[in-house]
Amino acid sequence: MSQKLPVSPLAPKKTAKPKKLSGLSLSVVASGARYKGRDDVLLVALDKGASVAGVFTTSKMPSAAVDLTRQNLAASRGRARALLVNAGNANAFTGKAGAKAAAITAQAAAEKIGCQAGEVLVASTGVIGEVPDTEPLVRAIGKSCGGSDGGSDWQAAARAIMTTDTFPKLATATARFGKESVTLTGIAKGSGMIAPDMATMLAFIFTDAALSPTVLKKLLTTANADSFNCVTVDSDTSTSDTCLLVATGAKKMSGAAVKGAGDKRLTAFKKALAQVMQDLAQQVARDGEGISKLMTVHVTGAEDDAAARRIALAIGNSPLVKTAVAGADANWGRIVMAIGKSGEKALRDKLAISIGGVQVARAGCVVPGYKEAPVARHMRGKEIAIAVNVGVKSGPKAGKARIWASDLTHSYISINADYRS
Amino acid sequence: MSQKLPVSPLAPKKTAKPKKLSGLSLSVVASGARYKGRDDVLLVALDKGASVAGVFTTSKMPSAAVDLTRQNLAASRGRARALLVNAGNANAFTGKAGAKAAAITAQAAAEKIGCQAGEVLVASTGVIGEVPDTEPLVRAIGKSCGGSDGGSDWQAAARAIMTTDTFPKLATATARFGKESVTLTGIAKGSGMIAPDMATMLAFIFTDAALSPTVLKKLLTTANADSFNCVTVDSDTSTSDTCLLVATGAKKMSGAAVKGAGDKRLTAFKKALAQVMQDLAQQVARDGEGISKLMTVHVTGAEDDAAARRIALAIGNSPLVKTAVAGADANWGRIVMAIGKSGEKALRDKLAISIGGVQVARAGCVVPGYKEAPVARHMRGKEIAIAVNVGVKSGPKAGKARIWASDLTHSYISINADYRS
Repeated sequence: MSQKLPVSPLAPKKTAKPKKLSGLSLSVVASGARYKGRDDVLLVALDKGASVAGVFTTSKMPSAAVDLTRQNLAASRGRARALLVNAGNANAFTGKAGAKAAAITAQAAAEKIGCQAGEVLVASTGVIGEVPDTEPLVRAIGKSCGGSDGGSDWQAAARAIMTTDTFPKLATATARFGKESVTLTGIAKGSGMIAPDMATMLAFIFTDAALSPTVLKKLLTTANADSFNCVTVDSDTSTSDTCLLVATGAKKMSGAAVKGAGDKRLTAFKKALAQVMQDLAQQVARDGEGISKLMTVHVTGAEDDAAARRIALAIGNSPLVKTAVAGADANWGRIVMAIGKSGEKALRDKLAISIGGVQVARAGCVVPGYKEAPVARHMRGKEIAIAVNVGVKSGPKAGKARIWASDLTHSYISINADYRS
Repeated sequence: MSQKLPVSPLAPKKTAKPKKLSGLSLSVVASGARYKGRDDVLLVALDKGASVAGVFTTSKMPSAAVDLTRQNLAASRGRARALLVNAGNANAFTGKAGAKAAAITAQAAAEKIGCQAGEVLVASTGVIGEVPDTEPLVRAIGKSCGGSDGGSDWQAAARAIMTTDTFPKLATATARFGKESVTLTGIAKGSGMIAPDMATMLAFIFTDAALSPTVLKKLLTTANADSFNCVTVDSDTSTSDTCLLVATGAKKMSGAAVKGAGDKRLTAFKKALAQVMQDLAQQVARDGEGISKLMTVHVTGAEDDAAARRIALAIGNSPLVKTAVAGADANWGRIVMAIGKSGEKALRDKLAISIGGVQVARAGCVVPGYKEAPVARHMRGKEIAIAVNVGVKSGPKAGKARIWASDLTHSYISINADYRS
């Protein structure tokens, strides 16, 4: 794992500059467990009263870290004092020894912070199948700043959780929250659903707003459906996917407490949350292994939003669509094929397809007098827009979805097949 | 589409030598419609009384050829006099003009053979989205031998239906059928679920046994589930997949007519049918685009056979497993990942994995004292055996499946991304 990959050509040009976020402190440290000369442990200390909600991998093979974080969140009903992330070892498929290792590192973090082990959430990514050596991790945790005297260097935090990511992923927004202005800042990692030997996607979004775990969970689930669940690199679902939304509670809502996610006073907050999560999700796609072009696929006219999303993902996951995009080939027949295989309702004889805003097919047939030149020009760019109307429903009840996907290139094969043998 | 691909390194060493099959004649001819200097039209004339059963793509975007063959088979209740196959144009997503083109070629074949157009079955593979020019096809059909004076050159027939296949796919067997000995001979094509610009898998199995369309359908569906439905190259389902089982009826069963697929006298026939279809299916996998290694994945201990098959396909379709195989990387963590993402029940803490007959993991953990050397040696071979027990059920009720898959190589990317731009 010593190869240094070049930064993705789709990396964002600008770096987010988050404001100070009250109620937490960040500490990064190098354990030396797998990587040399870089931070690989992030410890986030949360002030008392912080709320947390999480969504996790749907894999039937969840990592020991996912197991422990799920358990602790359930037992504490969404209360936590610390988040501990290590990069380089996923602690997945490691049996009882892995569960013990996760507990040992959580205990070390609890001692450092001064809280209960059950108040520590953990997340690990890296190799599958190797029990992590807890010694360097425990030592690193001991050297971290620990409690509220830690820093707020979000760039460093985003870097410390990277495995084969080629750039750190950071997004931020502010929103009106009653009479307060609150900040939402998130970091994420992920470069393949599994990077070489590595597993996978982590995202942590923090806010200083005061919101209950129940409300957070609803907000997170809604925003997640339209952000991280809309990204695909290689269709491979990791054993470690974890997305947490943490509210430190430093800034209270004026007036009555927010009881439900439907509270009208949350409108700006929801918008900011969607913005941060979509930004991070798109950054994950932009760092897809071996990416040369980013696909954005819009599907409309479907039975419902879930059907639209599955159709969009069938397009974004199709090796033949991905290779056509990589080869700048305006091969829209492959898009037809991918829609057809999605298993979702789609009316062949009403189907319409646009590429780069140019309609190539409608009513189940190529458009009369279709000229490939403008489409081919769009396909040579770095950001490819594919829009499909599957003709099942129209009007406001029609299902729609938008997903981001990387293409499939020689570099993907090199990253995943060539480096270890 | 003029590149000439080298023959797959996984091509079978021996060529099948079918016996003469009574009740049909084969005729191949070059239309020049897309390819130069090769036969691209196959016309199979069937004697009166032939029975046919078919299974077709599940794609929601079926080709005009699939539409017409489905209609004709339903209207005739499984009776047909001819099969017409052309290579180079899939006649898919071609709207009304495509439907008309299919009807025109069926009519031309009917006139040549001396039957009704509704008794002609058609199959087309090649480019999606282009209405075929019927003129060269009709001319070629006119030049074919037509009726029972045609030949029986199965190699030529298998070659005439190829698109980007690198070798012709042919399999044969004989079986006791009451007091008779019957022959089963099949041909197939397919190299990616879609080859470059091309769509896809066709298989035709012929026998001189006398069997009703109803019995044929049951035999075909059963054999198909364990043969063609167990092959994956790139997870992309074509618009044209067609598999037909044709019984010419030249050889009658002694005693009472065969009424159902459960008839004990069919035991040898079923075995021979399974053998021919599995042979052809494996040949399709062996010609997978860019293949360097053939994976055989066995799954046992599942909830049922369908669950086992979905788990096996999740492994065989995973880009990360495929690239690990291509890179001869004994990266069994990716197998764990693929099982986890299949959506099927699998018990992490009972999971066992073997590669090349060597157990690498059991009870949800790497085996104690695991040594990679013998597994790495197996991974450097051309045929990779992966076996997984997912620990959900044991004994005779446990679900099991076996699938074949190609790996994912630079050649796959080159074939699908590099040649057209």
